[in-house]
Amino acid sequence: MAVRAGLRLFIGCGAVSRRQVIRSFCRVHRIQAASSVTSHEGHRTPDLSSFGSRSHTCGELNSAHVGQEVTLCGWLQYQRGDVFLILRDLHGLTQVILPSDEESSQLRKKMKETPLESVLLVKGKVIVRPSGQENPILNRCKPLPFEIKDFVKKSESLRMQYRYLDIRSAQLQYNLRLRSTIVMKMREYLCNQHGFVDVETPTLFKRTPGGAKEFLVPTQERGKFYSLPQSPQQFKQLLMVGGVDRYFQIARCYRDEGTRPDRQPEFTQVDIEMSFVDQLGIQQLVEGLLRYSWPEEKGTLPDPFPIMTYAEAMNSYGVDKPDTRFEMKITDVTAQLRTTQLGFVQKALEKPHGCVKAIRVPEGTEVLAIAVKSDGSWKSPLAKHLSEEQKNDLADATGAEAEDLLLVAIGQHSTVCPALGRLRLGVASHLEGCGVSLRDPSVFHVLWVVDFPLFLPKEDNVEELESAHHPFTAPHPEDMDLLYNEPAKVRSQHYDLVLNGNEIGGGSIRIHNAELQRWVLQNVLKEDVGLLSHLLEALESGAPPHGGIALGLDRLISIIVGAPSIRDVIAFPKSLRGHDLMSSAPDYVSPEELQPYHIQVTDK
Amino acid sequence: MAVRAGLRLFIGCGAVSRRQVIRSFCRVHRIQAASSVTSHEGHRTPDLSSFGSRSHTCGELNSAHVGQEVTLCGWLQYQRGDVFLILRDLHGLTQVILPSDEESSQLRKKMKETPLESVLLVKGKVIVRPSGQENPILNRCKPLPFEIKDFVKKSESLRMQYRYLDIRSAQLQYNLRLRSTIVMKMREYLCNQHGFVDVETPTLFKRTPGGAKEFLVPTQERGKFYSLPQSPQQFKQLLMVGGVDRYFQIARCYRDEGTRPDRQPEFTQVDIEMSFVDQLGIQQLVEGLLRYSWPEEKGTLPDPFPIMTYAEAMNSYGVDKPDTRFEMKITDVTAQLRTTQLGFVQKALEKPHGCVKAIRVPEGTEVLAIAVKSDGSWKSPLAKHLSEEQKNDLADATGAEAEDLLLVAIGQHSTVCPALGRLRLGVASHLEGCGVSLRDPSVFHVLWVVDFPLFLPKEDNVEELESAHHPFTAPHPEDMDLLYNEPAKVRSQHYDLVLNGNEIGGGSIRIHNAELQRWVLQNVLKEDVGLLSHLLEALESGAPPHGGIALGLDRLISIIVGAPSIRDVIAFPKSLRGHDLMSSAPDYVSPEELQPYHIQVTDK
Repeated sequence: MAVRAGLRLFIGCGAVSRRQVIRSFCRVHRIQAASSVTSHEGHRTPDLSSFGSRSHTCGELNSAHVGQEVTLCGWLQYQRGDVFLILRDLHGLTQVILPSDEESSQLRKKMKETPLESVLLVKGKVIVRPSGQENPILNRCKPLPFEIKDFVKKSESLRMQYRYLDIRSAQLQYNLRLRSTIVMKMREYLCNQHGFVDVETPTLFKRTPGGAKEFLVPTQERGKFYSLPQSPQQFKQLLMVGGVDRYFQIARCYRDEGTRPDRQPEFTQVDIEMSFVDQLGIQQLVEGLLRYSWPEEKGTLPDPFPIMTYAEAMNSYGVDKPDTRFEMKITDVTAQLRTTQLGFVQKALEKPHGCVKAIRVPEGTEVLAIAVKSDGSWKSPLAKHLSEEQKNDLADATGAEAEDLLLVAIGQHSTVCPALGRLRLGVASHLEGCGVSLRDPSVFHVLWVVDFPLFLPKEDNVEELESAHHPFTAPHPEDMDLLYNEPAKVRSQHYDLVLNGNEIGGGSIRIHNAELQRWVLQNVLKEDVGLLSHLLEALESGAPPHGGIALGLDRLISIIVGAPSIRDVIAFPKSLRGHDLMSSAPDYVSPEELQPYHIQVTDK
Repeated sequence: MAVRAGLRLFIGCGAVSRRQVIRSFCRVHRIQAASSVTSHEGHRTPDLSSFGSRSHTCGELNSAHVGQEVTLCGWLQYQRGDVFLILRDLHGLTQVILPSDEESSQLRKKMKETPLESVLLVKGKVIVRPSGQENPILNRCKPLPFEIKDFVKKSESLRMQYRYLDIRSAQLQYNLRLRSTIVMKMREYLCNQHGFVDVETPTLFKRTPGGAKEFLVPTQERGKFYSLPQSPQQFKQLLMVGGVDRYFQIARCYRDEGTRPDRQPEFTQVDIEMSFVDQLGIQQLVEGLLRYSWPEEKGTLPDPFPIMTYAEAMNSYGVDKPDTRFEMKITDVTAQLRTTQLGFVQKALEKPHGCVKAIRVPEGTEVLAIAVKSDGSWKSPLAKHLSEEQKNDLADATGAEAEDLLLVAIGQHSTVCPALGRLRLGVASHLEGCGVSLRDPSVFHVLWVVDFPLFLPKEDNVEELESAHHPFTAPHPEDMDLLYNEPAKVRSQHYDLVLNGNEIGGGSIRIHNAELQRWVLQNVLKEDVGLLSHLLEALESGAPPHGGIALGLDRLISIIVGAPSIRDVIAFPKSLRGHDLMSSAPDYVSPEELQPYHIQVTDK
């Protein structure tokens, strides 16, 4: 249907009065609007026009509305000729036609001078081409640094500097709205269905032992500082001691780690803790949570999620967060190569945990140089040192066929597997870069990794142990006896949730016995227990058995929407260097402003 | 029904295995459980026993369960004799009877030695007095600093130091659970019913002009600091520029104002902003929000909420947050006293805005000294200077009767009203302290205060103006002409929400025109616009008309539950001096830990 509208211009600070009745006529397109998704619980669709000036959104009108008086608000997306306008809001586009009669010439002229992205209020009747009246321009737009069109490429820093314009893009609108919808459904599941209590915990807290990555906050008490915690770990455990039974929080967390790729100094985690529960219970809870909140358009998640031990993940994928969307698993070929005469292989196998591992890259010869050629001959520095029988054994063990590539690594188990794991991911990216379709972007692979070691050797001193995750993780019940004699061999009750090769969550059953907790801190980790005396005292005060998990919300959402960076699912992210390019935070502060905090900047 | 149970003791770190099947027999009390309230939307009652060890809560069993195998988890509340235990969880109490046979004597002995507040898992069949088997003690409790009984009075500092024990009290459990329930219903209303998008905004931000109360966060860039914002004000406006249309966030905010009664360095606000809306729209939204989330057991709120202008609030109550739960309004009696010969009255009335105001305290003579006596004579230093006619006029104007008290203040309007306003509240507290019932604790009085002045004279220099609320507040459309000539007379589009004499929310329609915003900042407020250049630039980029509100969640919840302090509705509050008495935050930090931030503590 054709459309016609009169526009009364008022550019300035005028409030949108409800009493202005102006007529215009609209034609309508629809675009996808994430916020109109109804929930599984059968909630009615949200009323997007309640309380405000508009009667409908720009994505709402259709032929059923012909003859109705409507009010639309939005941004001037496009002008064509004298009379056509496209009005955009986040729900869609509506075409408006200005009156073409003589008395409206002034109006048409004014509209022609109105920049794109100016804000309009259009009132009128949805009909076929009659005469119209007035509509206000609510706010006039100056020339912008970039156009609000998805196909217009902008630099990352320009997008960050004008984040409020970037947010108008369909992709960011979708990401932010989907994030809100998913979080809401998580809350419904936890609060309404399973009785979890949303408790806010402080972010101004005491520095934790070894909390090198915690931001400090100076106070007006000379020399005293708060610390911004990396997670509500202590508080959630104290809430269990306090009998809260089932806690959750969408918690803001802080981590000062300088410039690491795709990390943010503040981030959000879905933080969960419950009492009287075991590992299986937490896993079932989280599986239900994700299945309930998972967007319908993204398919379904398995029930139950697959479980893999840490040992198996390291053996087969060389990493504790395996990307199981493609094969190319690590195969042990030690037996096949044990009889080889090659000196360096023999030497490696003589050492403890010496081994030979291989990855088969199907049809990898198309891309890479070292390979089983199509005539069956081997192109490899190893080839001439292997007998035909050894080659056959190796091919049998790995399933290598013509045109496949075998990547073979020899050395200690603890270095061979991670090396092949990194190689596996590198080869996968390389293959995809060459056009080989390896991972379906619409497919999601989720799994649990369990039975982690409780302690790991310190990086800077392998004779000493540190917590693989954190000191509150409970030992595996089957390994309790090992704890006092061979702590390095103890498995933990920790579990990681892995999605498409990314760790999106980690949790554990916690130690609820004060003596055990003190023993771990003092005798294994050699930490100063004084700094955790309040927690130890709490464990002595009737602490229920408890456990929980934290899901990285930013990462989870970015994987769901297929965004390359968590910055694409955060409204106002910081740059890689931790800068807000819009407001230029952080910024210098005058010595006078530092005075109340009794601090000064040191000399270089 | 009588109850009997066998207990197997395992004190230590044992996980709760699901495979232990133990029998016990239970008798049940019910106490009120806030979390079992079903929502208006007809959500099913949450499943409080999903995923965990227990089959039922301690508040759940009744005669219908007789014969069933059940598992309960909870705290040892009480022991009586050899065989009776009371097990408590947050939902109620269950009585357990230990077996009294010979073979269980060891068990009974062990239980007798088990301290109160130890954590038990009890399994068994709900029946009448048969024999039972074993139950584990999940965690043994040491002697506690205070008993978990509501009637046991503890000092505030002891409660804060052992907050995790205090949280076990029925009152704090109720407060925290009701808070969670109310917030969940707010989210349902905003997200599911009205299409608001929950967007998280940064807390590490740039210092705002005049942001003296903002905490600073040193960064590893020498001399540069983040700032913890007092509210997401700038971000919410930028989200409107970004076309988010309807934003909300349960937002953590920060304010460093040292020791002020019942303030917290971090607090939570329900932060709302929407586009294409006027003042009435926001008010209707908030009224709907509060009516929807209001606990059923707390009665209903009016529809619509009453509205009072700022001028009327000041005139009648002497304050901009009037407590309308009781009368004793301020009456103007200038006319009645204009003819008096009293010199100081004449002198005061000659000055601009000179006036005489009075408050009538019904039956106030019972409590206070200066009054209309029961024989009709006046007890007052004024009495002998007033003619009978003047006295009668005054009595008529105020409605004063025998045994009433009249409080009269003479001077300038701007000081008389606030003085009487403070006196009014003081008298009310005094009367209630004397047993007069003035304010019904079960009644809630909510109202809007509107038409605030846009600017107020600065406290330290009355020749200059400052924003009455913040510089982004839009002028009242009727007062636009005054803005450029008599800005002190301009009313704003600000609105406050007042509950029982407390300001629980404030908001406004914002300036969306960059030129107007710049004019206000530069010409009225004399501020450095450079610091807000990103916001001004955003307003030039097609900013829709928009407005919003922020509700103080801590205060709101504390009024709803009738708590004397917001500390009673916060899980881990800070003390008056901003200390966490449990962990002793804030704390000293070594010079080495400050080094990466290039700061040092100054010498005294």
